Amino acid sequence: MAENESLTADYIAKTVAETMYRKDTAAQHLGIALKEIGPGRAVMTMRVADFMLNGHHICHGGYVFTLADTAFAYACNAYNQNTVAQGAQISFLKAVAPNSLLTATAIEKARTGRTGLYDITVQDEKGQTVALFRGNSHTIKGQMIPGLNEKEEK
Amino acid sequence: MAENESLTADYIAKTVAETMYRKDTAAQHLGIALKEIGPGRAVMTMRVADFMLNGHHICHGGYVFTLADTAFAYACNAYNQNTVAQGAQISFLKAVAPNSLLTATAIEKARTGRTGLYDITVQDEKGQTVALFRGNSHTIKGQMIPGLNEKEEK
Amino acid sequence: MAENESLTADYIAKTVAETMYRKDTAAQHLGIALKEIGPGRAVMTMRVADFMLNGHHICHGGYVFTLADTAFAYACNAYNQNTVAQGAQISFLKAVAPNSLLTATAIEKARTGRTGLYDITVQDEKGQTVALFRGNSHTIKGQMIPGLNEKEEK
Amino acid sequence: MAENESLTADYIAKTVAETMYRKDTAAQHLGIALKEIGPGRAVMTMRVADFMLNGHHICHGGYVFTLADTAFAYACNAYNQNTVAQGAQISFLKAVAPNSLLTATAIEKARTGRTGLYDITVQDEKGQTVALFRGNSHTIKGQMIPGLNEKEEK
Repeated sequence: MAENESLTADYIAKTVAETMYRKDTAAQHLGIALKEIGPGRAVMTMRVADFMLNGHHICHGGYVFTLADTAFAYACNAYNQNTVAQGAQISFLKAVAPNSLLTATAIEKARTGRTGLYDITVQDEKGQTVALFRGNSHTIKGQMIPGLNEKEEK
Repeated sequence: MAENESLTADYIAKTVAETMYRKDTAAQHLGIALKEIGPGRAVMTMRVADFMLNGHHICHGGYVFTLADTAFAYACNAYNQNTVAQGAQISFLKAVAPNSLLTATAIEKARTGRTGLYDITVQDEKGQTVALFRGNSHTIKGQMIPGLNEKEEK
Repeated sequence: MAENESLTADYIAKTVAETMYRKDTAAQHLGIALKEIGPGRAVMTMRVADFMLNGHHICHGGYVFTLADTAFAYACNAYNQNTVAQGAQISFLKAVAPNSLLTATAIEKARTGRTGLYDITVQDEKGQTVALFRGNSHTIKGQMIPGLNEKEEK
Repeated sequence: MAENESLTADYIAKTVAETMYRKDTAAQHLGIALKEIGPGRAVMTMRVADFMLNGHHICHGGYVFTLADTAFAYACNAYNQNTVAQGAQISFLKAVAPNSLLTATAIEKARTGRTGLYDITVQDEKGQTVALFRGNSHTIKGQMIPGLNEKEEK
């Protein structure tokens, strides 16, 4: 049934994300928090810390990218099939002030065979879009939680 | 004279980079070191620290991007005209192991009017390319060191 | 008044597009048709002709790009401020069969100062997405129809 | 022996390209000519025809992309393993005047497993770079000339 399928897919996504996060030193170190997760989608937040500021006293673009890339990773790994980023494109639309709270929302635009395409929008607390990120994923061998999907499919 | 012009351009690039680096909390925090600098080019290194590892125990792509983006920033700001990243595209070619020493080499491919295009190659200590980054820059108002270019032109 | 403003913006967009299309040999030659136009948005169609087929007997990616790029151009020029493509990224999701009728839908994601970002989706007649295109625009001097906006603003 | 290997690889590349070109209606229709071919590299030219001009009376960016994409296709198919474009990014650096003779030079930057990355430079007859294109390829099943590589390896 469609509803059960969806519940199951949501359950898998949540379980994978929790396991992945526990091992994810990088996300923890940056204070990135997982707010929502589902098959092919994720919402994550990050507070801009002082150590993230560059020579213009704004948030280094690398950290904006890192937040978007993290949301991308959780969204495309949510099926419990190990998936890596093949590449990504980011457009910086607005300078990010110190101490901003950023939210990255990842949605899946396409998934065919082993490749996927995800759009990530990064907004500040005023709801202004500061960056748009498009990521290409590639599924590789292995599962974050071996056997989870089969168990669920019973 | 061409030689003097070049010496001057190199001097401006070096002076701007040093000033920029002193204010660049993000680069300092990550242990990013400036190895070479010139007009439109920069070489920077970063050692992959444990806090940069993601849930697959490899370097988070965000940090590879951050190193490349930093080399890009120093290369495109080397003319002492404030310049920001408008966008960038990165291709991840190889997983980066813990403790790797990465080198990002930025070169200018084009600069017309206020926009520029830079290619950054990121390699590990074995000389293997782990990522290719292409950045689009946009010159804005202001100078890192007001008056430096005029002084040099005398 | 907001309603009048919108009517006016739609009128400007339509007028610019018609003028632009009359001069647009490339679009005419490919049988690209303008279906919808508004400020920052455009819908255009193209039938895949035999001369567009490549060595694999599918539509050459260059023509899929050209359709998307055309919709992008009409969307970003719809304000009657001459605007050019600075760059674009395209992801090919599905091979396009001979004789397919393709529809490109361009929407504006951001416009700040002189730069804009547009997302273009290309679908076949079954509604399947065959390509996703993201374009960066740059406004330059000049208007397609000098004085049109001022006249409307009276 | 390395020299023989290289001769063989060049022979395969040339043979595949000739076969591919004979079927390539799109390239023929645009007058695209193959000037050089080798494993992972290709040089192709195109004269800007009147039907390629857009509403600004310059070459439509779609045709510049198409030339670059064609050189990309020949370069990445030169190993006689069917390979398709997964995506591409293009930066337009200079408007292209009517009747220009464009040259696209494709080189391979990386090839690991089934994915590859190629850089294509498009220049006019004055040697000025008008566009930079970066393409991601993906190898699929099949060969342009079944058995060619095995025969050569004897």
